[in-house]
Amino acid sequence: MTGISLNPDRFFSPDPTTRSLARRLYEPVARLPIVSPHGHVDPRLFADPQATFGSPADLFIIPDHYVTRMLYSQGIPLEQLGISPLNGKAETDHRKIWRLFCTNFHLLRGTPSGIWLQHALSEVFGINEKPCADNAENLYDHLAERLARPEYSPRKLFERFNIAVLCTTDAATSTLEHHRAIRASGWQGQIRPTFRPDGVTNLEAPGWQADILRLSEISGVEVVDYASFIQALEMRREFFKHMGAVATDHASLTPFTAELTPGAVEQIFQHALKGQATPNDAARFTAHMLMELARMSVEDGLVMQLHPGSLRNHNAGIFQQFGPDKGADIPIQTEYTRNLLPLLNKYGNDSRLTLILFTLDEATYARELAALAGHYPALKIGPPWWFHDSLNGMQRYFDQVMETAGLYNTAGFNDDTRAFCSIPARHDVWRRASANWVAGLVARHIVDLDEAQEMMQELAVGLARRAYRLA
Amino acid sequence: MTGISLNPDRFFSPDPTTRSLARRLYEPVARLPIVSPHGHVDPRLFADPQATFGSPADLFIIPDHYVTRMLYSQGIPLEQLGISPLNGKAETDHRKIWRLFCTNFHLLRGTPSGIWLQHALSEVFGINEKPCADNAENLYDHLAERLARPEYSPRKLFERFNIAVLCTTDAATSTLEHHRAIRASGWQGQIRPTFRPDGVTNLEAPGWQADILRLSEISGVEVVDYASFIQALEMRREFFKHMGAVATDHASLTPFTAELTPGAVEQIFQHALKGQATPNDAARFTAHMLMELARMSVEDGLVMQLHPGSLRNHNAGIFQQFGPDKGADIPIQTEYTRNLLPLLNKYGNDSRLTLILFTLDEATYARELAALAGHYPALKIGPPWWFHDSLNGMQRYFDQVMETAGLYNTAGFNDDTRAFCSIPARHDVWRRASANWVAGLVARHIVDLDEAQEMMQELAVGLARRAYRLA
Amino acid sequence: MTGISLNPDRFFSPDPTTRSLARRLYEPVARLPIVSPHGHVDPRLFADPQATFGSPADLFIIPDHYVTRMLYSQGIPLEQLGISPLNGKAETDHRKIWRLFCTNFHLLRGTPSGIWLQHALSEVFGINEKPCADNAENLYDHLAERLARPEYSPRKLFERFNIAVLCTTDAATSTLEHHRAIRASGWQGQIRPTFRPDGVTNLEAPGWQADILRLSEISGVEVVDYASFIQALEMRREFFKHMGAVATDHASLTPFTAELTPGAVEQIFQHALKGQATPNDAARFTAHMLMELARMSVEDGLVMQLHPGSLRNHNAGIFQQFGPDKGADIPIQTEYTRNLLPLLNKYGNDSRLTLILFTLDEATYARELAALAGHYPALKIGPPWWFHDSLNGMQRYFDQVMETAGLYNTAGFNDDTRAFCSIPARHDVWRRASANWVAGLVARHIVDLDEAQEMMQELAVGLARRAYRLA
Repeated sequence: MTGISLNPDRFFSPDPTTRSLARRLYEPVARLPIVSPHGHVDPRLFADPQATFGSPADLFIIPDHYVTRMLYSQGIPLEQLGISPLNGKAETDHRKIWRLFCTNFHLLRGTPSGIWLQHALSEVFGINEKPCADNAENLYDHLAERLARPEYSPRKLFERFNIAVLCTTDAATSTLEHHRAIRASGWQGQIRPTFRPDGVTNLEAPGWQADILRLSEISGVEVVDYASFIQALEMRREFFKHMGAVATDHASLTPFTAELTPGAVEQIFQHALKGQATPNDAARFTAHMLMELARMSVEDGLVMQLHPGSLRNHNAGIFQQFGPDKGADIPIQTEYTRNLLPLLNKYGNDSRLTLILFTLDEATYARELAALAGHYPALKIGPPWWFHDSLNGMQRYFDQVMETAGLYNTAGFNDDTRAFCSIPARHDVWRRASANWVAGLVARHIVDLDEAQEMMQELAVGLARRAYRLA
Repeated sequence: MTGISLNPDRFFSPDPTTRSLARRLYEPVARLPIVSPHGHVDPRLFADPQATFGSPADLFIIPDHYVTRMLYSQGIPLEQLGISPLNGKAETDHRKIWRLFCTNFHLLRGTPSGIWLQHALSEVFGINEKPCADNAENLYDHLAERLARPEYSPRKLFERFNIAVLCTTDAATSTLEHHRAIRASGWQGQIRPTFRPDGVTNLEAPGWQADILRLSEISGVEVVDYASFIQALEMRREFFKHMGAVATDHASLTPFTAELTPGAVEQIFQHALKGQATPNDAARFTAHMLMELARMSVEDGLVMQLHPGSLRNHNAGIFQQFGPDKGADIPIQTEYTRNLLPLLNKYGNDSRLTLILFTLDEATYARELAALAGHYPALKIGPPWWFHDSLNGMQRYFDQVMETAGLYNTAGFNDDTRAFCSIPARHDVWRRASANWVAGLVARHIVDLDEAQEMMQELAVGLARRAYRLA
Repeated sequence: MTGISLNPDRFFSPDPTTRSLARRLYEPVARLPIVSPHGHVDPRLFADPQATFGSPADLFIIPDHYVTRMLYSQGIPLEQLGISPLNGKAETDHRKIWRLFCTNFHLLRGTPSGIWLQHALSEVFGINEKPCADNAENLYDHLAERLARPEYSPRKLFERFNIAVLCTTDAATSTLEHHRAIRASGWQGQIRPTFRPDGVTNLEAPGWQADILRLSEISGVEVVDYASFIQALEMRREFFKHMGAVATDHASLTPFTAELTPGAVEQIFQHALKGQATPNDAARFTAHMLMELARMSVEDGLVMQLHPGSLRNHNAGIFQQFGPDKGADIPIQTEYTRNLLPLLNKYGNDSRLTLILFTLDEATYARELAALAGHYPALKIGPPWWFHDSLNGMQRYFDQVMETAGLYNTAGFNDDTRAFCSIPARHDVWRRASANWVAGLVARHIVDLDEAQEMMQELAVGLARRAYRLA
């Protein structure tokens, strides 16, 4: 059993000059409010003042595919981690799940999940031992006791975490009922929806036809053709904006963009309504919709986020047995220069648009994204995403993006998480990694300390606020 | 307003061991003459002893697309930066342009342009404040006064910069009149042309037909078919050599090489003469010409440079409004292993050829270029190019190229610049980055100090002289 | 003439904190036995107790394509390095070859070969000067004298090197006669064969038909169709297992996998038997065989290794004149996510399979391999391979693989070498690079010292033993 030590200098370069500069740069931003413009926390948690996080396994294991994938990769069946097969049973003894997790905690050595978990255990729950077989029972008892206390409710933790704004991710067909309940409750936590229409814009999304029906219903526009589809989307965007949304979010396998003729798009849409869209139809429709969505953003001012490059559900067996989001999404090589050409030629020079690009292919940082964002007024580069939201991922991002794109064409940090209790940890890692990067610039006399301090304010809060129009 | 401090240890690792070694390695090469075998300085500047650089905006802003692209990316129209639309007017008040630049100078924090500009302002013009809104007027006055002095003429600065040789880049159809004027003037500055025939070898170059007419005229060979085209090119090469050229330079979208049959190449050439060449014809012709140009280099000894991987004029709106070279060229993924196979199989084992390869796709450094250059006698790897001509770009280059290619299969440094006053800054960055890299090898006991000192001489001057046959 | 100094802190970061931690972590693993689960040492060396390494040129130059390629790249003909053309003569004066090597030893500055050679010269042969023109004769005499001594026989060095296990690489058609002789001799050195069937699974392998005849002969199964081919392979695997093999090894241009129908595979196989297989047939057959070989591994427990991404014999002239393995194999871009999908969907969830993936395309580390290995139970990531088996290659591997894959989904180290005397050097570089990486984690408070020490045991020995089932 070894201790969790959140050393005050953690993640900083061991070089004494860099370290002391990093500390000095980090200190003033360490406790700034958290701006979280992109994430996946369930708004339901905040809708009900009595909501709780459930058991320690509910909080830290079962929903966290970063954790369960690592255990699965070492041969531990997902069922034993409390993940229910679609037609079958999972382990329901949460204490047993917790024990399995603790026994295998060493697998997370040196991983971001290892860092986030230790931070949350220590800072949020006052635990100062690394989980292991020997302390599993004690830790479980300790956590369960804390989670039952009122001050560990989502709303209380939201306040304790000093979150200025938290954006959720919501389907185009969502009623935003939880967001409404939050507002109605009079609670002051700022929680905003984000418009994510993939379920209706991706013709291959499971249940697309059902979702279109839902879209018709909720928008009050009967979707019978492409024009009514667009009208329904626009009405939903208006509603989301009214509910506080500042952004939209879009996943696609590639960033391919292309404008179809009205005839071609109508034909594809009609095929889809009949359940006859081909994979090629779907790819062309996505390419077209990215342009249409950029047009909408120009008009309504919602910031557009694009997250391409993840081949979802790579493991067919796991997908069939357990469904999506089980840690089996694998990145692919991604190309932006040619794929975004049509969209950028049409909207890239228009400052009314902010298009934030993300990538899972780091080879594109220095090669494509930095050069694009260092030219087009509409472009910003999003923070290191998913597998790259890590100390090394951030360092590669700073080293490969900033010289060409310039700091001011980036968008600050996203925690992008479902795991609410990891939010302070994630922002802390970013602020520390930022301080370490900027300290390196000061130590090598590339920027001076005054500039460095301004850059730190931007990295911690300013860039995100500005990119997402949250000022 | 903050100072420009050109700290003597700038850009070196903050680690004291590495820093002191880097200083010791840098010192003896710091003031070696500058060898600039590849760049874009206008030879006209040196043809007329009375030539000047114009206003501060003429010198530092208007022609520098590294600077204007960054300002444009933040929403500043190019017209306001003094860049004239093809059919329209730009700001002509250079003091106003300068003010806008100074006000936005913070956008260049941590970028190579920021580094080069501060070096030139300080070292060349004695300015020790970073440009900002408050000092814009004073800096303008100061610079304008200096630029009017005779000792700030291009020739005087050339001498002050201690440039041993400067190679320009010149169209195949150029009369080289400025180079002739320089020679005729008796001035001793060594300025050499470089043969860049893209205008006539790229069938898609705007004005190709007109350029072919110009080629006929200037070579005295009427270009009516492929054979006469080749003959005209060979005569131009001979003339360039006679005028001091040591190298040729070629851009292409990809490094695809392939030899066409005489019938096929003639057919494409005849199509082109009639203005009927297709994009596919052009791609095949470029692939063929790269081999033909390698053959010519084998025969006449001109070093061949290949710069592939830039998708030119990505922003159609900017291209239509302002023309080329406005900061909208974006890199694409590049493949060398298969693309160069035909050329290397034919000429790669021939030491009479030196082919220097450049890349905008750093993923090819360790994967393809280092392995190719570590085998083929004819190959050398050029220095980090364009967006990668930066401190991090150089570090990645050293780390990813040298272990496999070996130092002696690289070609030293190119400044590749139009911005004459940035030349000392750029070579200084390279020499410092080199010293820092070699210091790291010494500090880790990979090479010893004697070896390190020899490597530094090579990096600063020797490799470039040898690769470009300038010894 | 400068000294070889094997500084005890070599390859560690110069930062004092990191360096002292690295030293502390390295020390306990420095002298652990060497586990070498993948390499190309000739088993014949150990079959005969009287075998010797020949001359200094035989040992260090002629068979080492890492060395000869670098000399060749600088214009030195392979013949002068003692490499015989298929129809011609090479230099036979080994002293002359040695002199040429010494005179050009500076070309290896900063390369892994330079490091390995200095280590072997110093540690194995007691030479403490870097080779150069001046000491060439003396070094030759010194080495020749040592090589003639009984204690420099392969078996004695094997023992002195403290090699616990050494796996060779052997054709499917090999009689494993040397392995049998080693066993029969009663010598205790553990030398195991590895099943490498590329000669019969790659329809484009030179001499495929002859190899199929040999396969029939040696297996006792007449190979007349696909079924008998598979049966023969399975019998050979059984024999290899019986002779101590724990693994198979497979090269392929790409990692493309796909299952053919029985009819399709039979048709291709029959074409091949008639010498009529097309390149497309061969690619599809390889894709199919990778799945078949995974199936066999599931059944017989042999660990499967896949080494894709090398375009063999890039230099046609060298290949025609000298044959394969002359330093002209060049990496290509590689894609794993889509290519391995069929294989992983069929066998990736099966813990009976261990599939160890290697790459020559480092862009796939963080993008594809780490994400795949961090999910599929059957996958492990092999160590940095070939051109990336270097200090920087290892650092990039640690930085790009470990955060997402986790240490425990990697496979430790392979020396992958023909050059027996470089084995201790190569493992030492790995152990030092590992210590330096882990020291950085400790210095930045990402793992604590207890964890670090456990990780070091894994990196030095444990991961390799476990991945290759050598426990």
